[in-house]
Amino acid sequence: MKLFSAHRAPSPRRVLMFMAEKAISGIEIVNVDLNSGEHRTADYRAKSPLSKVPALQLDDGRVLTETRAICTWLEGRWPEPNLMGVDADERAFIEMADRRVELYLMTGMANCIRHTHPGLAALEQPQFADFGRSQGEKVRETARWFDAWLQQRPWMAGDRFTIADITAFCAVEFARLMKFVPGEEGLHALQAWRDRVAERPSAKVV
Amino acid sequence: MKLFSAHRAPSPRRVLMFMAEKAISGIEIVNVDLNSGEHRTADYRAKSPLSKVPALQLDDGRVLTETRAICTWLEGRWPEPNLMGVDADERAFIEMADRRVELYLMTGMANCIRHTHPGLAALEQPQFADFGRSQGEKVRETARWFDAWLQQRPWMAGDRFTIADITAFCAVEFARLMKFVPGEEGLHALQAWRDRVAERPSAKVV
Repeated sequence: MKLFSAHRAPSPRRVLMFMAEKAISGIEIVNVDLNSGEHRTADYRAKSPLSKVPALQLDDGRVLTETRAICTWLEGRWPEPNLMGVDADERAFIEMADRRVELYLMTGMANCIRHTHPGLAALEQPQFADFGRSQGEKVRETARWFDAWLQQRPWMAGDRFTIADITAFCAVEFARLMKFVPGEEGLHALQAWRDRVAERPSAKVV
Repeated sequence: MKLFSAHRAPSPRRVLMFMAEKAISGIEIVNVDLNSGEHRTADYRAKSPLSKVPALQLDDGRVLTETRAICTWLEGRWPEPNLMGVDADERAFIEMADRRVELYLMTGMANCIRHTHPGLAALEQPQFADFGRSQGEKVRETARWFDAWLQQRPWMAGDRFTIADITAFCAVEFARLMKFVPGEEGLHALQAWRDRVAERPSAKVV
């Protein structure tokens, strides 16, 4: 099996961290150079037709893309420790937490960074800086809600570490590019949660 | 059980269509008035803290939000007909198809409409019309890829109707607000797929 990944990009990092939590080994990591546009080459698009990274090539040749779908597949093959729910009820509530993080925190941060950061100009054309700044303001408001949420429970989905914490951690680490550091904005519960996640060995994998 | 829904909004429609495919009955539908801001009231936020619609209130009082998470829960309770995969392998590939539709088709369409349509000004403040138009152009390119995809297989996830078709159908129907009609843009496979879905009884539920 091969995982097509990219250095320092938040989506591949979600899969790498998920694999590290499960101590999965035996999957070859192949780095794709986003800055030179390797993901847009015909060779790569033969594997991932929409040029998306990460992509997991299975032993039977099929290729799976989409971060969370790759995690679903890995969870089936390596069930322990469980990160996505043990039955449909828990799977649904963890999916809710993961989607909240992904759609309202990570997407807003990514929109801000992709539309305002000079280093992302090669990936996002055209950039709309006003839109990006507005997204940055909105996501800071949303981050306040997550801070309040974490004042009541230790992890994003409740009482145990799950995929939603991986998604949120990769988002918050990426958000350094928009100079977002929770503690500096008075979001102390979010900062304490981030620091707890950062201590895990899986957080060292980039 | 109660489903908090909203007339003509694409996300609640995904859940209503999913329920209709499974012939689920006995869930009370409660409409939330988005235009008057009912989703932002303290009463509604006590159920759905991020003001999101739809939301499913379970019999034990817990409230589940996020369209796809609600579908995951319903699939657990009403497994037939299966719409999200029978095992982890199929669940992963259907999730890939569903996310492709949601993140690259539906999100682009929604960004275009929310940032350019006068009727959405109450929900999207501020609107960035240039960004919206650019998103409209990009999503039309992406729609070409889905058209090519559907020239090779009958349904979004492959050989059977799944949740990915529901997501895509609700997106394409919503995209009328950006004057997107696949057949008028030469996307005949996408149009033929849309027309096949439109014949299903579940497509009549709005």
